Amino acid sequence: MKKGRLEAFSDGVIAILITIMVLELKTPHDTDWQALRPLVPVLLTYVLSFIFLGIYWNNHHHLLYAAEKINGKILWANLHLLFWLSLIPFVTGWMGENHLAPLPTAIYGVVLLCAAVAYTILQSLIVAQLGANAPLARAVGKDKKGKLSLIGYTLAIPLAFVNQWIAAGLYVLVALMWLIPDQRIESKLSE
Amino acid sequence: MKKGRLEAFSDGVIAILITIMVLELKTPHDTDWQALRPLVPVLLTYVLSFIFLGIYWNNHHHLLYAAEKINGKILWANLHLLFWLSLIPFVTGWMGENHLAPLPTAIYGVVLLCAAVAYTILQSLIVAQLGANAPLARAVGKDKKGKLSLIGYTLAIPLAFVNQWIAAGLYVLVALMWLIPDQRIESKLSE
Amino acid sequence: MKKGRLEAFSDGVIAILITIMVLELKTPHDTDWQALRPLVPVLLTYVLSFIFLGIYWNNHHHLLYAAEKINGKILWANLHLLFWLSLIPFVTGWMGENHLAPLPTAIYGVVLLCAAVAYTILQSLIVAQLGANAPLARAVGKDKKGKLSLIGYTLAIPLAFVNQWIAAGLYVLVALMWLIPDQRIESKLSE
Amino acid sequence: MKKGRLEAFSDGVIAILITIMVLELKTPHDTDWQALRPLVPVLLTYVLSFIFLGIYWNNHHHLLYAAEKINGKILWANLHLLFWLSLIPFVTGWMGENHLAPLPTAIYGVVLLCAAVAYTILQSLIVAQLGANAPLARAVGKDKKGKLSLIGYTLAIPLAFVNQWIAAGLYVLVALMWLIPDQRIESKLSE
Repeated sequence: MKKGRLEAFSDGVIAILITIMVLELKTPHDTDWQALRPLVPVLLTYVLSFIFLGIYWNNHHHLLYAAEKINGKILWANLHLLFWLSLIPFVTGWMGENHLAPLPTAIYGVVLLCAAVAYTILQSLIVAQLGANAPLARAVGKDKKGKLSLIGYTLAIPLAFVNQWIAAGLYVLVALMWLIPDQRIESKLSE
Repeated sequence: MKKGRLEAFSDGVIAILITIMVLELKTPHDTDWQALRPLVPVLLTYVLSFIFLGIYWNNHHHLLYAAEKINGKILWANLHLLFWLSLIPFVTGWMGENHLAPLPTAIYGVVLLCAAVAYTILQSLIVAQLGANAPLARAVGKDKKGKLSLIGYTLAIPLAFVNQWIAAGLYVLVALMWLIPDQRIESKLSE
Repeated sequence: MKKGRLEAFSDGVIAILITIMVLELKTPHDTDWQALRPLVPVLLTYVLSFIFLGIYWNNHHHLLYAAEKINGKILWANLHLLFWLSLIPFVTGWMGENHLAPLPTAIYGVVLLCAAVAYTILQSLIVAQLGANAPLARAVGKDKKGKLSLIGYTLAIPLAFVNQWIAAGLYVLVALMWLIPDQRIESKLSE
Repeated sequence: MKKGRLEAFSDGVIAILITIMVLELKTPHDTDWQALRPLVPVLLTYVLSFIFLGIYWNNHHHLLYAAEKINGKILWANLHLLFWLSLIPFVTGWMGENHLAPLPTAIYGVVLLCAAVAYTILQSLIVAQLGANAPLARAVGKDKKGKLSLIGYTLAIPLAFVNQWIAAGLYVLVALMWLIPDQRIESKLSE
């Protein structure tokens, strides 16, 4: 099976997700600065989710590039990842419109955690297919970043009920950690 | 005529459909657990339709991979399939928001049935083009899964008025039957 | 300049347009047959516009396939066509929700007419680039179908104010005329 | 890293943005000419933004065509550009629905300015990668058009508070200046 169509389909879904989030930015009826104020938290959560989806697209890009062929398991693991990513616009809107109220902020973390788990499954399947000696396996290695992300989200979920800004800070930290494209894979693959 | 653009267009439409369904998950105004409760049936029907669209994308992928060239008939049979798939977000929303009321649950089955018929037509045209001895023809064979799906939907539509959970159960059964990618085609084509 | 990206971009826009039209089918609050009745005209106009967009995608496919290279003029003529097509969901919704009231029905024709003019311009530019002896030039020939469409739309616009069903009938006639893929080009190109 | 997926993803995002803007054109409830009047400014700002997005797609097309390989910096510079472009539907709707009130008209300029800055960064990164003697570097040259655009937007932002039509006029002027595809690159690259 060709991986081109899997990439194209994933690109399409992520491109749509990253774009329909902006529909949550409803045009205000007034035209003064006051009208923009309630949009500020919505815009900031939009920026955060835009970066998360950008990171996923980026890492997905590297991962699929390394994959050799697509079987049924990989195909459904990919759809599973896309499912969790598809919930990001909903939780982004809910969190942003409610100024990071505890529950929406925690649920945002739940969706990020599930997406991260789905990504880890997809990565394991592709690594397993290529074998332990393939460049990808060595590039992923112990997957420190992936594990740190899972820990970050898992901590953020209960902490959102203590103080939502701690949770939000953890989300920002994880995003910053990933902002740099996965150079492990990039450098190992070019060996 | 190149089949690449037909695949790209179908990928685009299915990617959009699978994504705009999530717009039915309207962000609640409240931020407590109660606010999430009415979303549960909407989310569950979303998951079901996400899986159905994933199955169609998956099988469409296999089918077009086997096709040799695209003529006018195949092109319109494909658009006919996309038309019925395009109604899935509407019927998903209607069924989910009304907690599987009988009529929306039956209409959901009607749209699934029409999409399945459209897929069968598309498959027949491609099989006919390739000839009875082509790997695809042998892979499809008697198309037991396809026929069982048609029977399942046809039973579910009247049964939705008796008890909607029987209909919903039938939809879930059909989805589970297809969740495994079409290995008949996969294995026969690789011979 | 590569034509692949022009095709991909056009595919993307047409795929989105054909899909977002379905968002006009708002999920009714009630769950009886009465709730579906006001949706019937919306659904029928959706089917009509779905077919028109399918025809445009189909003919665009053939036309670009014949094109050799894309220059600035062709690129903007293509965007011009996409602009008029992008108004189809709006006029479809307006016409369908108002049960083919005269003005929306006439404006629907105006948008179809402008899209047809834009297509004719794009076709002329590509034919001119390939030269009068190219297969495409002979395939397009006197472009009877194109001219009949322009006449049909031009008649339908004023007639919508006399009786909207005459206008609607003309739209359906034009669509039926085009439903068959452009076999002139298909056959001439395969010579 | 392959640039094909970067192009496909950017095409997808721009195709969606250019299309969802039209969702701001809400179907009026009435069916007379009066019902269309409030849509005129919305439609005109839609046309303007459609042209701007068309220009970006066009120039992006040329730029990426010249690029050799995509590294992490270019990838994020591209996402940064897409972020600002993704705000265009929001500011278009806000400006159009409020008949070019001063603040929305100024904010429209801010988004255009940020997108132009993001494009300049992306262009610099690609030029730097290819080296000062590459055809692209010579084609971009002193980038007069780019600098004039930045000046145009910077002037328009404060002038929107003096008279919004001056700002709108400046936006139209910049768009007209770019409407012609970037023939510098086109001609230099074909040398």
